[in-house]
Amino acid sequence: MKPKILQIRKGILENNDVLAHKLRQKFSQKNILVINVVSSPGSGKTEFLTVLIKKLIKKGLKVCAVVGDLATDNDALRLKSSGAPSYQINTNGNCHLDANMIEKSLTKIPWENADIIFIENVGNLVCPASYDLGENIRIVLISVTEGEDKPLKYPTMFNSSDICVISKIDLSRAVEYNKKIAIQNISSVSPDIKIFETSAKKDIGVDKIVSYLSIKKNKHY
Amino acid sequence: MKPKILQIRKGILENNDVLAHKLRQKFSQKNILVINVVSSPGSGKTEFLTVLIKKLIKKGLKVCAVVGDLATDNDALRLKSSGAPSYQINTNGNCHLDANMIEKSLTKIPWENADIIFIENVGNLVCPASYDLGENIRIVLISVTEGEDKPLKYPTMFNSSDICVISKIDLSRAVEYNKKIAIQNISSVSPDIKIFETSAKKDIGVDKIVSYLSIKKNKHY
Repeated sequence: MKPKILQIRKGILENNDVLAHKLRQKFSQKNILVINVVSSPGSGKTEFLTVLIKKLIKKGLKVCAVVGDLATDNDALRLKSSGAPSYQINTNGNCHLDANMIEKSLTKIPWENADIIFIENVGNLVCPASYDLGENIRIVLISVTEGEDKPLKYPTMFNSSDICVISKIDLSRAVEYNKKIAIQNISSVSPDIKIFETSAKKDIGVDKIVSYLSIKKNKHY
Repeated sequence: MKPKILQIRKGILENNDVLAHKLRQKFSQKNILVINVVSSPGSGKTEFLTVLIKKLIKKGLKVCAVVGDLATDNDALRLKSSGAPSYQINTNGNCHLDANMIEKSLTKIPWENADIIFIENVGNLVCPASYDLGENIRIVLISVTEGEDKPLKYPTMFNSSDICVISKIDLSRAVEYNKKIAIQNISSVSPDIKIFETSAKKDIGVDKIVSYLSIKKNKHY
């Protein structure tokens, strides 16, 4: 890549970081916990979030959601079924969300009253890793069907995340998933990451994340 | 996005297209069929290619492979087990292969003697769609575990591909895969795409692709 292009890319990332920092301050003033959820396409982000948000709302928390996709507004419609006000950002072919898109989307949801805002990123294990969205917690989802080696192949995404949710564990046997190797690989690129095993479909493991986030919520951000 | 950045991005793509065109001519002169394989992370590209290449070699065809990843050389090692000379391009965090990387990789494999060259792209359903690598055929893999809606959410990748390989069909029942809806969705964004259903693990459907590619190989490119 030529130096000029590198310089411009650096500029884009720097501008994004400045805006993300401002967003984080804005959220912090209202004591809102913001969570950026990233994964490959088809890892089950929307299903996981729908189940998780339902449970958080049942606990009395106010939740909003923003979801990014290249095309369609399917995911916002699915997320709305959880009871949370949800807004779809159509990225028009862009491979990730950025802080600017998040700032604009805030006019579309009652974010100021929320306890937690979930941001469901574009399904992509590469590009979203570089874009801070002003979140407090980054969750990377990885389904058992994707193979145990993915953390080694996409280290930046795992290394930049605070929580790893292993999804679709009800399929572990069918895909001959090797849990020990998977956890070894995750920990080798991201030693401090917190790992949860879940199946949104069978309602396994989601309650543990509800408890964890409820505690996190009580810390001031 | 600012006009200056758009202009530079357009320039990068134009330069890439020029080089890809040259590569296609170079491959054509030697009557080599070049196939670019794209998918999400974990769709089973490497397993599919390993089984497919073994069968093609058994038929007497000479095959080479080039594989791109952000980190690790696991996939080239796995592909080598098929019997094909294979070279790993480490993209150092870049989210797609480009024509320049392909040109450089040619010094590492006996490409001039090959009948077919497979290029296994970085696992990403967004960015590789925009980069012509000089291929004759683009194959997009989508596993039944990823959900039926992915063609609607990543239309450019499906629309720019010639063949769609639905992988891991042995898991269809476990994930309650709706084949009718999936095929409807694929066809709605890419009406002329050729669809194959496969399980590399159970050796289902791969022979049909072997026959198809053998016939394609006999056409001069």
